[in-house]
Amino acid sequence: MRLSRFFLPILKETPKEAEIVSHRLMLRAGMIRQEAAGIYAWLPLGLRVLKKIEAIVREEQNRAGAIELLMPTLQLADLWRESGRYDAYGPEMLRIQDRHKRELLYGPTNEEMITEIFRGYIRSYKSLPLNLYHIQWKFRDEQRPRFGVMRGREFLMKDAYSFDIDEAGARRSYNRMFVAYLRTFARMGLKAIPMRAETGPIGGDLSHEFIVLAETGESGVYIDKDVLDLPIPGTEVDYDGDLTPIVRQWTTAYAATEDVHDGPRYEREVPEERRVHTRGIEVGQIFYFGTKYSESMKALVTGTDGVEQPIHGGSYGVGVSRLVGAIIEACHDEAGIKWPEAVAPFTVAILNLKQGASDTDEACERIYRELSARGVDVLYDDTDQRAGAKFATADLIGSPWQVMVGPKGLAEGKVEIKRRGDGSRENVALEDAVARLMA
Amino acid sequence: MRLSRFFLPILKETPKEAEIVSHRLMLRAGMIRQEAAGIYAWLPLGLRVLKKIEAIVREEQNRAGAIELLMPTLQLADLWRESGRYDAYGPEMLRIQDRHKRELLYGPTNEEMITEIFRGYIRSYKSLPLNLYHIQWKFRDEQRPRFGVMRGREFLMKDAYSFDIDEAGARRSYNRMFVAYLRTFARMGLKAIPMRAETGPIGGDLSHEFIVLAETGESGVYIDKDVLDLPIPGTEVDYDGDLTPIVRQWTTAYAATEDVHDGPRYEREVPEERRVHTRGIEVGQIFYFGTKYSESMKALVTGTDGVEQPIHGGSYGVGVSRLVGAIIEACHDEAGIKWPEAVAPFTVAILNLKQGASDTDEACERIYRELSARGVDVLYDDTDQRAGAKFATADLIGSPWQVMVGPKGLAEGKVEIKRRGDGSRENVALEDAVARLMA
Repeated sequence: MRLSRFFLPILKETPKEAEIVSHRLMLRAGMIRQEAAGIYAWLPLGLRVLKKIEAIVREEQNRAGAIELLMPTLQLADLWRESGRYDAYGPEMLRIQDRHKRELLYGPTNEEMITEIFRGYIRSYKSLPLNLYHIQWKFRDEQRPRFGVMRGREFLMKDAYSFDIDEAGARRSYNRMFVAYLRTFARMGLKAIPMRAETGPIGGDLSHEFIVLAETGESGVYIDKDVLDLPIPGTEVDYDGDLTPIVRQWTTAYAATEDVHDGPRYEREVPEERRVHTRGIEVGQIFYFGTKYSESMKALVTGTDGVEQPIHGGSYGVGVSRLVGAIIEACHDEAGIKWPEAVAPFTVAILNLKQGASDTDEACERIYRELSARGVDVLYDDTDQRAGAKFATADLIGSPWQVMVGPKGLAEGKVEIKRRGDGSRENVALEDAVARLMA
Repeated sequence: MRLSRFFLPILKETPKEAEIVSHRLMLRAGMIRQEAAGIYAWLPLGLRVLKKIEAIVREEQNRAGAIELLMPTLQLADLWRESGRYDAYGPEMLRIQDRHKRELLYGPTNEEMITEIFRGYIRSYKSLPLNLYHIQWKFRDEQRPRFGVMRGREFLMKDAYSFDIDEAGARRSYNRMFVAYLRTFARMGLKAIPMRAETGPIGGDLSHEFIVLAETGESGVYIDKDVLDLPIPGTEVDYDGDLTPIVRQWTTAYAATEDVHDGPRYEREVPEERRVHTRGIEVGQIFYFGTKYSESMKALVTGTDGVEQPIHGGSYGVGVSRLVGAIIEACHDEAGIKWPEAVAPFTVAILNLKQGASDTDEACERIYRELSARGVDVLYDDTDQRAGAKFATADLIGSPWQVMVGPKGLAEGKVEIKRRGDGSRENVALEDAVARLMA
C-alpha cells in the first residue's frame, strides 16, 4: 500500500479523553474514531489489525474442530425469557422495539440462540460432540464505557458453544478450547495465562480466564513465575487425543486474579522467589455450565439407551476487538506501538527519505514491488513529508520492520533496516534488502 | 471437511413459509435459519458462500483503489438530524434508546457517518480522490420482510463512499466503481446488467442499478440483447486511466427496469428481434449525489485556489447477503443449487457409496487428502447414509463437482465424476481423478 493513497489520519496531539495508553495510541495512530460513547469506527489501519487477529482466532478454532456459523446481531426477547435471563440481565442489555412493537435485543452473548439452533436440528447423541462458533459484533450497554476498545459497548467477539452427551464429553470439549486458546494468544505474540475464574451470569461451575500480563491491566494477578515458561502446544497437537496432560500442566502452578486469590494457599505453595504480583487484562474466558441452558430450553438428545436427556454445554469467548487494545498495552514504548509480526497491520514500512529524487524513488519502488510480489504487507511512505515526520509516523504505527532509503546511504548502495521491536539497526546493500527482510 | 464432523442440517420437507425458490433451497440445504422475521442465522454452509462473495467484493474494491474501514452498526440519531434524513427516513429505520436515553439507530446506510469521519480529518484537495468502503451488517425495518435473505431486515452490505474536489473527479470515481461492479458480478458467474435508475432517498441525479437476470426476479426489465454479449474488463484494466469508453459501451445499448422504462425510445432504438423483456434482481446500485451531504454536513476542503468548498460525493452499494439468494435464483434446477465455482461452499463433493468398505474408504481418503493438500474446498460425505440419499444431498447443496466412489467402479479402478452444472458424467481412473478435477 502506498501511503499517499491510504487513509491514515495521524493525530499530532495526544487526545485528552483517553485514559490509557492503548486508547491514546489507537487514536493518535488513526486506528479508530469514536462515533458515540463506547462505539467506534475502525479506520483502515485499525481494521487491518482486527482482521489479522480474527484470522488467527478462526484458524485455531477450525484446527480444534469447531465449526463456524454466523448468528445475527439482533435477537428475540422471548428467547431470553425461556432461559430466564431476559429480566436477570439488567440495564447492560440493549432492548429494542421494532415497528410492530415486537421486543428485540442487541445480543450481548449467544447461549440462548445457539441452543435454539441446536434443538431445531439435533436429536441424537450420534451427532455429538459438536462445537459451533461465530465471530460477530455484540453490544453491552456499559454504564460508563471507557478505555477505548477495551471496554466498548459495540465489540467484536468470538464465541463458541459446545454440545456433548455427558460431563466427560463436555470436559473433553472444554480441554480442546483450553488448548486452542493457548495457541491462539501465543500466535499473537502474547503471554496469556489461564486462571481459574468465577462463572458470573453465564453460570456453571468450571471456568478459566485467559489473562495477558500488562502493568496497565485492569485487575491484579498473583502467579507462580514458573507458569511463564510453560510450553505452548504445537500444530501437531492431536485434538482427538487426550489433552488432560496439557491442561493439568497449565493449571497446576498457581495463577489467580485478585477476585479469587487465595493468599494462604499462595504463600504455602509458591516459594517467595517465584511469586509474581502484577496486573493483567482478560482476553478470553471459557465456561463449562452443564445443563443450565439445555434444561430450561429443552435441548434434548437421545442417548445410547434411547432415552432423551439434556446436553452438557460450555461456552468459550475471545474478545477480538479488545485484543487490539490488549496487544498494544503489552507492546509499546514512548514512541508508539511495537506490533508482534503476526498481527501487524503492515509488516514492513518503506521510508523514502527524499521523495522525488530519482535514486531513492527507484530504490523504494523496487523494494516495494519485490516485497509485495512475495505477499508481504508493505506500507510505502511515498508522501512529501520530511524525514523526521516519516520516522515518527513509522514508530507510532509500529510496523515490525522499517526500511530507510536515503540519498547518502544509496550513494554507497546501502539502505538501513530498523527493527521496531528492539530498535536495532543495520545497513544492508540495496540488492540484499528484500532477502534480509524475508529471512 | 468431513461431513460427519460438519453441521449440515438438511431438511427433507420443503418449508411452507418460503415463497421463492432461493429461500426454499437455502432452508432445505441448511444454509440459514430464521431467528425472527427477516433476521437469519447463517449456518455453516450458508456462511461459506457469504464469505466467498464477500471476498470477491473486497478484492475488486481494493483493485479499484477503494480503502476498507469498518463503521459500527449503531449510529447517533443526531448525525442523521444534520443531514435532515432522521425524520425523512420513516418507519424502516430502527430507532433505539440506550440506558441513558440517548437516541441511537441501527444504520440502514452510512452516508452521514462517513461524511462525519471525512470532515474530521480531511482539509485539502491534496488528500483527494478518496474512496472508503466497508462491509457491515445493516438493518431496514421492512413492513413485511419476505423472500428470505433477498429482503431481510438484518442484511450484509458493502457500501463505498467517494470524495472528490469537483464533479469531473466524482464522475471518474463513479466510473471506477461502475467497472469494479462489472468485474465483481462476472466473477461470481452472474450476468449483471447496469441499468439507469432513479436515485430515491439517497439523492443525486446519476445512478445505475446492477440487475441480475432471472425469471423469478422482483422487477421487469427491458433490454437490447446485444448488452448480454459485452466484454467484461479484465484484471489489466487501468483504474487510473480513462474508463469512459467502457462505461459508454455498457450504457449505450438499451437496458431499463420497468420503473424507468421508456417504451417509445425502446421501440425506436431496439429492433424487434433484439428486444428482451424478462425479470431481474437488483444486486448493486451506484449513485453520484454531488454536494448533497457535504453541504448540509459541512464536509469542506480547500481547493487549488485556497478556497473552501463542499466535496462531491457518491455512494456504491452491493447487497452481499442478498447476492446469495440472487445467485441461487439464477443457478438452480429441480434437484437443488448449481453453484458457480467461485462462490461454491465446496468445490468438490466426494461421495463414498459404501462407507466402511476398505476399498472405497481408502480411495475416498486418498482423493480427499490430495485435493485438500492442493487447497481445494472439499466436502467428503463419509456418513452412513445410503447412496441415494448422498446423491440427493450432493445435488441439493450444489458443489460444482461430485466424485462418486463405489465398489463396482473401483473393481475396475474407476471413479465417476459428475459435473453439477450440466449433469455430464465421466469415468476416470482413480489415480487420474485429482488431476482431472484440478484441470
